Order: sequence, then structure tokens, then C-alpha cells
Amino acid sequence: MRLSLSGTKMAGLSGLRSIMEDVAASTAGASAGAWLNLSVGNPAPIPEVRDMWRAALTESMAEDFDEAGCRYGPSRGSHALVEAIADYFHRTYGWQLGPENIAVGPGSQMVCFAAAALFAGPGAHGERRIVLPMAPDYTGYQGLCLHDDGIAAIAPLIHREEGHRFRYALDIEALRRRADIGMMLISSPGNPTGRALGRADLDALTALATEREVPLFVDHAYGAPFPRIAQVHTEPVLHDSVVNCFSASKAGLPGERIGFAIGHPTYMAPLAAFMSNSVLHAPQLAQYALARVLTDGRLDATTRDVITPYYRAKKRYVDHLLHELMPADVDWRMHSGEGGMFCWLWVDHPWFEDTALYGRLKERHVFVVPGRHFFVDPPRTPGLAGHATRCFRLSLSADEKVITEGVHRLADVLREMRDAA
Amino acid sequence: MRLSLSGTKMAGLSGLRSIMEDVAASTAGASAGAWLNLSVGNPAPIPEVRDMWRAALTESMAEDFDEAGCRYGPSRGSHALVEAIADYFHRTYGWQLGPENIAVGPGSQMVCFAAAALFAGPGAHGERRIVLPMAPDYTGYQGLCLHDDGIAAIAPLIHREEGHRFRYALDIEALRRRADIGMMLISSPGNPTGRALGRADLDALTALATEREVPLFVDHAYGAPFPRIAQVHTEPVLHDSVVNCFSASKAGLPGERIGFAIGHPTYMAPLAAFMSNSVLHAPQLAQYALARVLTDGRLDATTRDVITPYYRAKKRYVDHLLHELMPADVDWRMHSGEGGMFCWLWVDHPWFEDTALYGRLKERHVFVVPGRHFFVDPPRTPGLAGHATRCFRLSLSADEKVITEGVHRLADVLREMRDAA
Repeated sequence: MRLSLSGTKMAGLSGLRSIMEDVAASTAGASAGAWLNLSVGNPAPIPEVRDMWRAALTESMAEDFDEAGCRYGPSRGSHALVEAIADYFHRTYGWQLGPENIAVGPGSQMVCFAAAALFAGPGAHGERRIVLPMAPDYTGYQGLCLHDDGIAAIAPLIHREEGHRFRYALDIEALRRRADIGMMLISSPGNPTGRALGRADLDALTALATEREVPLFVDHAYGAPFPRIAQVHTEPVLHDSVVNCFSASKAGLPGERIGFAIGHPTYMAPLAAFMSNSVLHAPQLAQYALARVLTDGRLDATTRDVITPYYRAKKRYVDHLLHELMPADVDWRMHSGEGGMFCWLWVDHPWFEDTALYGRLKERHVFVVPGRHFFVDPPRTPGLAGHATRCFRLSLSADEKVITEGVHRLADVLREMRDAA
Repeated sequence: MRLSLSGTKMAGLSGLRSIMEDVAASTAGASAGAWLNLSVGNPAPIPEVRDMWRAALTESMAEDFDEAGCRYGPSRGSHALVEAIADYFHRTYGWQLGPENIAVGPGSQMVCFAAAALFAGPGAHGERRIVLPMAPDYTGYQGLCLHDDGIAAIAPLIHREEGHRFRYALDIEALRRRADIGMMLISSPGNPTGRALGRADLDALTALATEREVPLFVDHAYGAPFPRIAQVHTEPVLHDSVVNCFSASKAGLPGERIGFAIGHPTYMAPLAAFMSNSVLHAPQLAQYALARVLTDGRLDATTRDVITPYYRAKKRYVDHLLHELMPADVDWRMHSGEGGMFCWLWVDHPWFEDTALYGRLKERHVFVVPGRHFFVDPPRTPGLAGHATRCFRLSLSADEKVITEGVHRLADVLREMRDAA
């Protein structure tokens, strides 16, 4: 079999996906509780959230099915959802949107994949790249691009803070030195760190996007206006150079694949055409269900009353747990920021290595995610080679008992690694 | 805004999509019956079919939702569906399939899009193309490829038959002369013609695929084992060089986007990886619903008792209608074959042109689809320039009253075009 150049790239699985396959293979068929899985990217199974989506989908089954399931839909998104999005963002932020500002896709991963093919890659004036303004960021971004070496990330500035804290900051000067930007892409609040763009950073990125005539994609999967899983410093901004991406996944409906982008028609028209040519359109019943919960306020209420408090409490719980259990003489630090679906941890010792931790924890039936996968090619990113492999990610989605026992074993392994050094 | 080379290609809409937008814009907000739309690609709204899917989805909502909607699923397809597919094809054809032989996607269009990116395009040994062994074929195939000039089609042999009939045949010698095949792709039974591959043609294509070490994708969207909308001459064949694609769309669930491919792991592994990198996975509830109707026999029963007879009767009805109403002195011909979701018509006179017909019928509030769009670049395909523009497609999905009135107006317009010549 001979794959095309793009095929060779796309047939590969990123390092993280190999780990996810390892997790799936190890835990398949095991009895509940046999493994402590702190690697999961799934949102937590919160009953009130599940009930909201189940009710909305049931209503759509009863009332929208003839219009929805039994018919092909518009590639830009079903009329009901496009209208609901326009109304919702007008109510929430005062934005004036028409259908030409909106493009719905089967998940925001697919929206970003389309964007990567449209705005990055070989062009009339040479090769242009997806540039992530600040590593670490969502590992799935590395799978988006159809070309080898098609994505680059800027190393962050690293600030140690008081206690067991640290914080990444945007290195805008390093970003400005890149001449090959085809599009910028950043999650805010971010996976894995929970770091959220402040106004000054967002303004700087927007100004650069405008200057270079490229789109800045801001992925609000964890953010505002829903599901607000992490603290939001700056609400989304409507700007000709910014494409805002939203998703129903972390709001509790990952399995049904609904995401959408809002931006200038210059960027939305090619996105809608790409959907039309590739996937035709997003699944319809879930679009209708999302339209319902956007319109009648259920999604806002569930975000406010359930989702945000749930993860905030969980993060506090794990924060206390880490302070209680981690060996006192180890320099471990957690990325700052209240909320978030994950804890992003940094153990700054030469004896620590993320994949060694992964292997030792796996022996104890615990899964975490090694940090290196959240950076793009860390060995080639100046200043990050040593940092990336000293980080790892813990998920907050598991229940407290699982997390508690997992952190116990994590602390044991850290002591063991320290003593072996 | 600067698009990449792939972006420029993918941001474009094929000629057919422009027509579909014209249809949508013209009919939007119009009262029912104001337009006679014989252009639709939607399957007909058959109550028994709708009821089957509604029941299956409702069951999945009730019983599978926690497993399905609330969780990310495997990129290869949900375990329930992958297992149901393996069992179903074992029962139906005796195939021995494991998960490694199966890749589910959000619609078979997306499966084919992934295949096009994987197996065609620039490669280590030059540019390779998607080759359609026999034009005309599904227009959506032309939107699949990320590169200009990335798709080619072989002109068919055209056989006039008795009465108002004709038939296309595979020109295998012309196909063998192409040295640039990256993959072959053919719908069987085909859109728009309903022509189905016979055993000898399928064997010849399979042999060529094997010789060139490329996959032959056979798209059974209208065919066997479901929904059997057109006559099937040859049931699907399991072969290392053949990738068989199946879809729930024409079986009545186009809006929810479920398709899948069955083939050798050499081809399935890259397809599953591509899904993982681009769209993550297909929507889950619809996968579970499809698993249910595959497993409990409902889909087979509905195919046999409802879908196949419905379209067969419809095709006969329109066949009689055409013979009754079309002007007797016009050389009009319909492509042979019982069943099919469309009538594919050829008016072999110099005064006939497909887009002129489109325009004149639109003035009379009737939509049909011009034939040229089902050929890839007909002006450059030897022997087809004159044929392609003398064809058009009528859909059988509209109800009989609409079709009857539409064919009346069609006959009037043909007389008018003939008299004007």
C-alpha cells in the first residue's frame, strides 16, 4: 500500500493517542475499580448534566425528527441551531450575527481540522503553519494538520509562584518572530493547564492576526459562555480577525459531536464549504437539542448551577489532597488558576521523567498522561526540552475515591523515584 | 485572506452545490406546492422507515445514553456497532470480520474524504489520483479531493437499447491506460443512473486494484445488503483489494451521518487513524441505533418489505409517465435498470442542453439536475463533451402528484426547445 504524503501524516497516531490505546487495552474488560484512570479527557458524568441533555434529545426525537434525522441538513448548520446561536450570542454578548457569521461542524475538532486545511499548508506563497501561540496546549491540535512539520508552538515564559504554584505566560515577541503563520490556534481556558487568556494577551494576539491577515482561532471548549469549567478572565470578543470556537462536548455531550465557529464571513464561508465537501453536515438531532438548551436557558442554568461549581470543588479537593500527600521535599508545582478539568503538574528534579512516571504508575494500575505530548516536538523547542518531560496531567473527571487513591500511589511513586536517584 | 492550495480547492463549491443553493434559496419560505422539486437527493419520507429509525433511536436514548452521548467513543466505531457489523455480515454473507476490518465514520462521504486524502494526492512517487472507473457518478466525489485536478473519470461506453432505453458500460481498457491511480471509487448501484456492477466488471476492477496495489472503494449506499434501492446484480465481495462502503443515509437516516467501510486492515487502520485525527468519531447514539436494527433484523425486514418495493413501484410509475407524456418525436432515453432513486435521462438532439432545460424549468417552478455535473470535467473527457450536456436527473423522492405535474411541464419544455431549434 502506498499512502500519499498527507496520508502518511494522517495515518499516524500522536504519542498521546498511543497512550490512550494503551489505557483502553489495559482497562478493557477489567472490573470496575481495578484501574485508577486519571488520564481521561471525558467530562465527568454529572447526573444533572446528563439529565439535561437526555431531556433535550428526547424532545428533539419527539418534535424535530422528521425535519432532522430523516433529511440532509444545511452544511452551515441546521436553521434551528444557526438561529439559536445568533439569538443566544446577541442576548449574552450583544453580538449581531447572521448565518454568514456561523459554521457548525461535527465537533470543534472537525472545525479546526477544516481550518487547518484551509489556512495552513502549502500555498501560492510558500508553506504556512498552524502556530500555537503558547505551548502546552490540547494535543489533538497536532493531529489536525495534513502535512509533516505543519504545526509549530511557541514556548511559554515560565513563572514560579508562591507555594506549589507556577504559571505560563505568552511570549508575544517570540510569536512575532515567526514569518510562517497561516493561522493561530489557542484553547482558552486551556487544556491541560486551565490558563485563560487575559485581555492584554488577547488584544496582542488579535493585533498580530490582523497585521498578518490570518485568523486567530480561540477554542472556548472549556470556557465562556458555557461550560465555564475553568475560570474565565476575558469573555469572547467579536473581531474580524478572530474565529471563536465553541463545543457541546465539555458541556456534557462529547459523544454526539457538535461544535461551531463564529467569525467573519471571510473565514466562515470557506469553513462551511469545507464541511459541505467533506462531511456534508453535523448530525442533526444533536444540533436541534443544542438549539433547545441554548434558547430556553437550560444550558446557562446548568453551567452556572452545576458544571462550574462541580469542577471548582473538584479542583480544590485535589489541590488539598496534593498538598497533604505529596512528599514535602519534592519541588512539585501545579499550574495556577481556579477550576479546569485537569491538574497540570510540574516536578522540577533531574530524577523525574514523565514517561518513567507513566510506566511506574501503570504498574500500580494508575494512569496519568505524560506531559511531553502537550508540547509540539519539545526537543526542537528551545528552552522546553527539560521542562516538557517533567510535567504530567491529572484528570478531575474520576470520582473522589479514585482520585484520592490515585494520588496516594502517585506520592508513593514520587518518593520511590526520588530515592532511586 | 490567503487560503492554502488545498483551501482554495475545498472552499470552492462544485457546480452541483451551486444549483442546490439555487434550489434552497428559491424554495425557502415558499408555500408547499409552489415549487415542484425533482432535484432532491433526500430519500423519500416513507412512514414505515421513519418509524423504524425513530423507534431505534428512542431505544438508544433510553438504554444507551450513558454509554453513548455522554462519552467520547472509539474512532474506529463504537464497540456495539463494530460488533453488530461483524455479526451482521457474517450472518448475511458469511464474512469473517474483526474490528480491524471495520472503520465507522460520520457518513460514508467522510469515509471517502479520508480515503481520498490517504490514498490520492502528492506522494513519494508523484501525484496519484482518485479515478472513477465509470462516469457519470455521484457528484459529491468531486468535492472529496484536496487538490486541483486530483480526480479523473473514465468515459463509459454508451449502448443504445430498444425503446427509450440506453445503458453505460465499463471501458476497462481506457481505465487500464491510466498510470496515476491512487484509488478507485465507484457507486454500485450508482447515483445517478442506477447502473449496478456485474460480476465480470467487479472482477476486472478488483484485478486491476490488486495489480496496482491500490484500493477499490465500492460505495453501496443504494445497494446491498441494505437499502437495495436499485437492482443489485452482484452482492458485495470481500477481497483484500476492495473496500466496501455502506451508509445508513439512503436507508432513511441521512441527517444523523453514519457510514462505515469494511476491508483489509491495511486500508482500515489508516482510515480509523484519520477519523481519530480529524473528526474523533461518528456520533454515538445513531451508531447504537444502527447496531440495534442490524442485529434484530428490523433493517433487513424494512428493506425487503418497504424500501425496495417503494422505489421499484415509483420507478415504474415514472417510466410509464414518461412514455405517456414525452413528445413522441423526441429521442429521449432513460438509463436501464429497475429501481434506483433517480431517472437518468438523455435527450440526444443538438437543440437540447441541460442547463438551458434547468433554466426553462425553473421559470415554470420545476427543479431538475443538469447532467454535466455528474461527469468530471466533461469538456476534457474525450467523447463525452456532447453527451454530458444532453443528460439530466429526475429524483423519485417527491410524491406522485408532484412528479406527474413536473413531468407534464418537462414535456412542455422539451416541445418548446424542439420548436425553437
